[in-house]
Amino acid sequence: MNDASHAAAPLTGPLSEEELRLMDTYWRAANYLAAGMIYLRANPLLREPLKPEHLKNRLLGHWGSSPGQNFMLVHLDRLIRQRDLNVLFVSGPGHGAPASLACSWLEGRYSEVYPDRSLDEAGMQRLFQKFSFPGGIGSHCTPETPGSIHEGGELGYSLSHAYGAAFDNPDLIVATAVGDGEAETGPLAASWHSNKFLNPVSDGAVLPILHLNGYKIANPTILARIPHEELEALFIGYGYKPYFVEGDDPPRMHQQMAATLDACIDEIRAIQQRAREGGSSGRPRWPMIVLRSPKGWTGPKTVDGHKVEGSWRAHQVPVADPATNRQSLRAVEEWLRGYRPEELFDADGAPVEALRALAPRGDRRISANPHANGGLLRRDLDLPPFRDYAVPVRAPASSYVSPTAVLGGFLRDVMRRNMTNFRVFGPDETASNKLTALYEATGKTWLAQTLPQDEDGGYLAPDGRVMEILSEHTLEGWFEGYVLTGRHGFFATYEAFVHVIDSMFNQHAKWLEKSKTELDWRAPVPSINLLITSLVWRQDHNGFTHQDPGFLDVVANKSPEVVRIYLPPDANCLLSVADHCLRTRDYVNVIVADKQPHLQYLDMESATIHCTKGIGIWEWASTDQGAEPDVVMACAGDIATMEALAATKLLKEKFPELKIRFVNVVDLYRLVSDTEHPHGLSDRDFDSLFTRDKPVIFNFHSYSSLVHKLTYRRANHDNMHVHGYQERGNINTPFELAMINEVDRFHLAIDVIDRVPKLHVVGAHVKEWLRDRIIEHMAYAHEEGIDKPEIRDWVW
Amino acid sequence: MNDASHAAAPLTGPLSEEELRLMDTYWRAANYLAAGMIYLRANPLLREPLKPEHLKNRLLGHWGSSPGQNFMLVHLDRLIRQRDLNVLFVSGPGHGAPASLACSWLEGRYSEVYPDRSLDEAGMQRLFQKFSFPGGIGSHCTPETPGSIHEGGELGYSLSHAYGAAFDNPDLIVATAVGDGEAETGPLAASWHSNKFLNPVSDGAVLPILHLNGYKIANPTILARIPHEELEALFIGYGYKPYFVEGDDPPRMHQQMAATLDACIDEIRAIQQRAREGGSSGRPRWPMIVLRSPKGWTGPKTVDGHKVEGSWRAHQVPVADPATNRQSLRAVEEWLRGYRPEELFDADGAPVEALRALAPRGDRRISANPHANGGLLRRDLDLPPFRDYAVPVRAPASSYVSPTAVLGGFLRDVMRRNMTNFRVFGPDETASNKLTALYEATGKTWLAQTLPQDEDGGYLAPDGRVMEILSEHTLEGWFEGYVLTGRHGFFATYEAFVHVIDSMFNQHAKWLEKSKTELDWRAPVPSINLLITSLVWRQDHNGFTHQDPGFLDVVANKSPEVVRIYLPPDANCLLSVADHCLRTRDYVNVIVADKQPHLQYLDMESATIHCTKGIGIWEWASTDQGAEPDVVMACAGDIATMEALAATKLLKEKFPELKIRFVNVVDLYRLVSDTEHPHGLSDRDFDSLFTRDKPVIFNFHSYSSLVHKLTYRRANHDNMHVHGYQERGNINTPFELAMINEVDRFHLAIDVIDRVPKLHVVGAHVKEWLRDRIIEHMAYAHEEGIDKPEIRDWVW
Repeated sequence: MNDASHAAAPLTGPLSEEELRLMDTYWRAANYLAAGMIYLRANPLLREPLKPEHLKNRLLGHWGSSPGQNFMLVHLDRLIRQRDLNVLFVSGPGHGAPASLACSWLEGRYSEVYPDRSLDEAGMQRLFQKFSFPGGIGSHCTPETPGSIHEGGELGYSLSHAYGAAFDNPDLIVATAVGDGEAETGPLAASWHSNKFLNPVSDGAVLPILHLNGYKIANPTILARIPHEELEALFIGYGYKPYFVEGDDPPRMHQQMAATLDACIDEIRAIQQRAREGGSSGRPRWPMIVLRSPKGWTGPKTVDGHKVEGSWRAHQVPVADPATNRQSLRAVEEWLRGYRPEELFDADGAPVEALRALAPRGDRRISANPHANGGLLRRDLDLPPFRDYAVPVRAPASSYVSPTAVLGGFLRDVMRRNMTNFRVFGPDETASNKLTALYEATGKTWLAQTLPQDEDGGYLAPDGRVMEILSEHTLEGWFEGYVLTGRHGFFATYEAFVHVIDSMFNQHAKWLEKSKTELDWRAPVPSINLLITSLVWRQDHNGFTHQDPGFLDVVANKSPEVVRIYLPPDANCLLSVADHCLRTRDYVNVIVADKQPHLQYLDMESATIHCTKGIGIWEWASTDQGAEPDVVMACAGDIATMEALAATKLLKEKFPELKIRFVNVVDLYRLVSDTEHPHGLSDRDFDSLFTRDKPVIFNFHSYSSLVHKLTYRRANHDNMHVHGYQERGNINTPFELAMINEVDRFHLAIDVIDRVPKLHVVGAHVKEWLRDRIIEHMAYAHEEGIDKPEIRDWVW
Repeated sequence: MNDASHAAAPLTGPLSEEELRLMDTYWRAANYLAAGMIYLRANPLLREPLKPEHLKNRLLGHWGSSPGQNFMLVHLDRLIRQRDLNVLFVSGPGHGAPASLACSWLEGRYSEVYPDRSLDEAGMQRLFQKFSFPGGIGSHCTPETPGSIHEGGELGYSLSHAYGAAFDNPDLIVATAVGDGEAETGPLAASWHSNKFLNPVSDGAVLPILHLNGYKIANPTILARIPHEELEALFIGYGYKPYFVEGDDPPRMHQQMAATLDACIDEIRAIQQRAREGGSSGRPRWPMIVLRSPKGWTGPKTVDGHKVEGSWRAHQVPVADPATNRQSLRAVEEWLRGYRPEELFDADGAPVEALRALAPRGDRRISANPHANGGLLRRDLDLPPFRDYAVPVRAPASSYVSPTAVLGGFLRDVMRRNMTNFRVFGPDETASNKLTALYEATGKTWLAQTLPQDEDGGYLAPDGRVMEILSEHTLEGWFEGYVLTGRHGFFATYEAFVHVIDSMFNQHAKWLEKSKTELDWRAPVPSINLLITSLVWRQDHNGFTHQDPGFLDVVANKSPEVVRIYLPPDANCLLSVADHCLRTRDYVNVIVADKQPHLQYLDMESATIHCTKGIGIWEWASTDQGAEPDVVMACAGDIATMEALAATKLLKEKFPELKIRFVNVVDLYRLVSDTEHPHGLSDRDFDSLFTRDKPVIFNFHSYSSLVHKLTYRRANHDNMHVHGYQERGNINTPFELAMINEVDRFHLAIDVIDRVPKLHVVGAHVKEWLRDRIIEHMAYAHEEGIDKPEIRDWVW
């Protein structure tokens, strides 16, 4: 405690003596349960002396932040009861579940969800047994935890999740425990600025509680070790009004915390009232709390002569060897008995009546807040007919359109029809990604200062629904918080930099997988829709750093239950795919589509059919007339498709007898066997498209290995020759980049000649000619800095 | 400019009238060059009226931050000259290269590196032509840029790179332009706290210059739109002493900037002097500068009635269509002529003498600072003989040791011998990852407050060389900055969360690839050594969130020139691999090794031979006696190896006649063909290990698809049956997790029986027995929370 003035805070305060006593009792009960989870497999009420056989075989769990988080929860409960507040709690600290689980059980919610964890001794014993135990539950606030939308296994996202939950939930208060370890991460550090995007009129409030617990696993935390003035300045700088609750003496801390929370809620309500009555404009300074309490508060003060409470030693299991060390066993027993379980639980093992009366009721219980099971509140989107936005396509591959610009029109009207439960996210790229039509429906969320020259087609407004901040982490966190509380969204981002949120994607996919496949009580939530654009093949001036299509490889490692990948080749296909994705639940839908003008292939009707099948033969481009082809030209992705078509046209001209089948893939998981993914094709269907023995030249948007991975069990796999990005690039014209990575028409045509035996001889001079074309076009690009018009304006 | 008081700053200041005039002239020259790069392919000095044919076919480049960065550079140059400072410049804003390129050319450095970009009209023309042009250079500060260690293609890492460069370089001042767009990213937001890790005694200084340029691509930046008090508080909160230079009137701004930089350098020197004379302890408040200047400063004020200077419209190309619009052409010409090129360059096109005299000399030129070509300064590590740390292995697979704990002893002595050019990095996990022996050699870097109970075997100290902050981004940024300036390091991190830095890995690999394969003048730098530990298979209490071995898939997408992946199966192999990696240059070495006790297989001599080969048959575990085997049991990774061995032992017992060949892979790229990777095996060698037609059961540490990707061109690929992580897990005992993902001994043995035809009949009852074992062990784990002793203590 580096600020002595706070330790001497007065014992008087808003709580009556009786209130204080009861709340402290509730806190003791929660702390007892949190400690019990770590240690006990039997004798949960300590009705008999503690013996080694009552202990778990392995002691797994984290004590450190539990008492502090229990402290927050018991104080939030008081406010919920007194003011009928609607509070969602987000637990940021790692391994923070014991607190949430303890309070959930005390509130009776845990037993409702898991009837065998009943409100009695047997239920308590099972709660303890199953904690951090094989076949049981984890020590993070996993999907199994009632009241949780935030697992916290990977640190950094509590605050962005909290803001995501608060958007468009005007009555909700999202109290958020931010761990001081977590606070060192980049994503968390950036997300404090979310307050510039929270509209007091139509959004709820976020009340961050920075838990200055003091230590990480083995080190002090930075924020716990800077002077008070710096800490205060930091949060003023982040735009908050910081309150400090600091100390270790429970009665004084209870009074401080109660007074502080009263003040914060008053302030939140005053801000909201002023704004909602039109009485204020501009960005409010929302309150936040710094709670500085000892790590492992109320736990053992010392063990083996080492300070434990208030040190990194309290992080995990404070007393490590009670099963084999009598002194340790006694220390654990003393510690647990110190909470006086006999006062906390009745003869059956249920919380005593006085404690049960303290818990909020029904849906007001933090562990039962419906926003934490957002699927319950989900309203399906009101979607306009996507066919209305169709690009007319008179003949395939005869005109150029920006697919994302077309999508923008559709998203504009999705927005107009869903102005309270749909948002669009982008890292300062919504305009760059050509989704500007959205601005006809709404502005960009912005509570900070504005200037006249800001207007750019889009406009900045507190009630804007396009959210732009230059932090993919913050955006993805907002989006996850928004969908986990039952609302819908769309995130468009540069392909290369979606890797910034690889780990967030991983964690969300894991959350979805558990929720969907193992937890019936969790209602399905809207999908994360991730449009990857500004693609590798169009990085004329951005160069090598902007060329990385490998996010799909990260995605493909996750459970087939929850991931979908689409590569719509043109605007109409993109419309069809987007419409589909916005209707789905419990997925991460990844859509790969570029923003630059691209050739259009399919009219709306054909596009819808093609996207519904997810894969198909394009008869108009094929020359096999339904017979067994000599070669299959396959493709996935817009540029990949164009070049594959151009190669096909070249081959048709040069070898009129050659039977080429042209296959386009939209839904990448069609390539997998139906035994591995719900979208997979049966082997029979796959073989009917790709043959069992003919060469397949597959032009792929991303790294070629992904197609091999998806198809390697197929009969014809050894004949699949995949072209894709080969990690070669710099400042290149589009066609030059295609050529150096060999996804261009000329290299594809050469590959066909090489793979089709009957062309080996007759094709020799054509190969020569194709190689000359490569040299010629490369030279032109280097001379002029652009591609030849015959390339730039190529049509079928 | 939201702070009117600054606009009225006085015109008097440290600069004499003549100094100011000359510096402003230099600035005009740099701005002229930066603008010329965007527009001109000919007529570089505007000796004739500007015509459309002088313009590039595509106008690519970013004007926005160039004048502001030129302003910084010209002012830094003054200080370098006057005080003989050693300044490295890190340019954070995206597409910030025009400023660095312009100043590099003016300093004569560019012509030294690229003789065709000579200091005359022809050279200037080529400088312009090649900028953001196919076959030329990018618009970020790519490796091609002299003086750069930071490309800035992906935003967020300027400040952590800068601190990395400053560590252990006591004389260096790293001036760092932080873009206000970049400042919104998580990694940047976290990295301000790097000042708690900078030792004024033995490290250099970092001088951050936050460029409040006001706009991103299409939006204002957050930091430009919060009140002055908040901005100031934010940087006080981050622990800096902020100085503000704000305005748009060049003469006033020159005086302000000069006065501010004088003050900052005085303060830096005073801090360093006090600390180095032992006169101060504790963390200093280092200065930082907020430079608020208009975006596109000195560019066109308005275009088509829209405000451009000081608006988002100045971000990229301010006047878009000069080739086709006469009015635009005139606007560009007027703008460029406004810099009065005839005063700036002589008859040959070289900078006039007065300007050349302003540039620093030799290595003091920012573009020639040797730290920016760190390989030049590289001193090889003084490595202790790694064999001295060997674990005695009397018989293979008979004892358990923590591999990382053994590595810790080696690293301790590496540290002791290299106390000025070696650091170890970890996100609060160095102790958890069992590298604690390091603390016998050094402490943990820490300049913030300390308390007695902090001590944990490690200790906190300003001169500690183990760097722990709970931000993988900051650590990786520091490490990259450290190696790019020629020093060495080692980064140990949890496997699942290395995905947090996927994109940083991508960007660094791309930097290395260009430096290594295309730029002779860049000397090789030490490798990034990344130990991935706390592996997927040992997440007993962390659960599903901590299970993701997929980083290897991200790595395998990068150029084979720069990535290496090692999976040493035991401690002695880990020693051999670590020793090797610490000797390499220009790679990212990824080492996968767990921290828990694992079986030891090879004595030091065998381990060294095995790791040198990278792959090999373990004769002692094989039963084929050099003959053609019935089946190959292959493995890579510690747990994978143990289970493969246990399966082999089971099979030996059950089928004494079965000929099993046991192959272990350390160097994963041995699996690839030698035509694809420098470490690849020839097909002949591969076939001699894996046969051309026998079943191969491959037990792999990570997702199985990676092995398929690496081997799919091999003759025997269709017989490769790979077991790996299947994205299934929760709270599990180690063996339970292995079983549900089918990498355990029983599933492997079943697979062998299924794949070896001669076992189909005789093996039926064994399969039955194996299936029973799976059920039995699963039940035990769920009951007891631990694995049976026969599993936990299994030996060969």
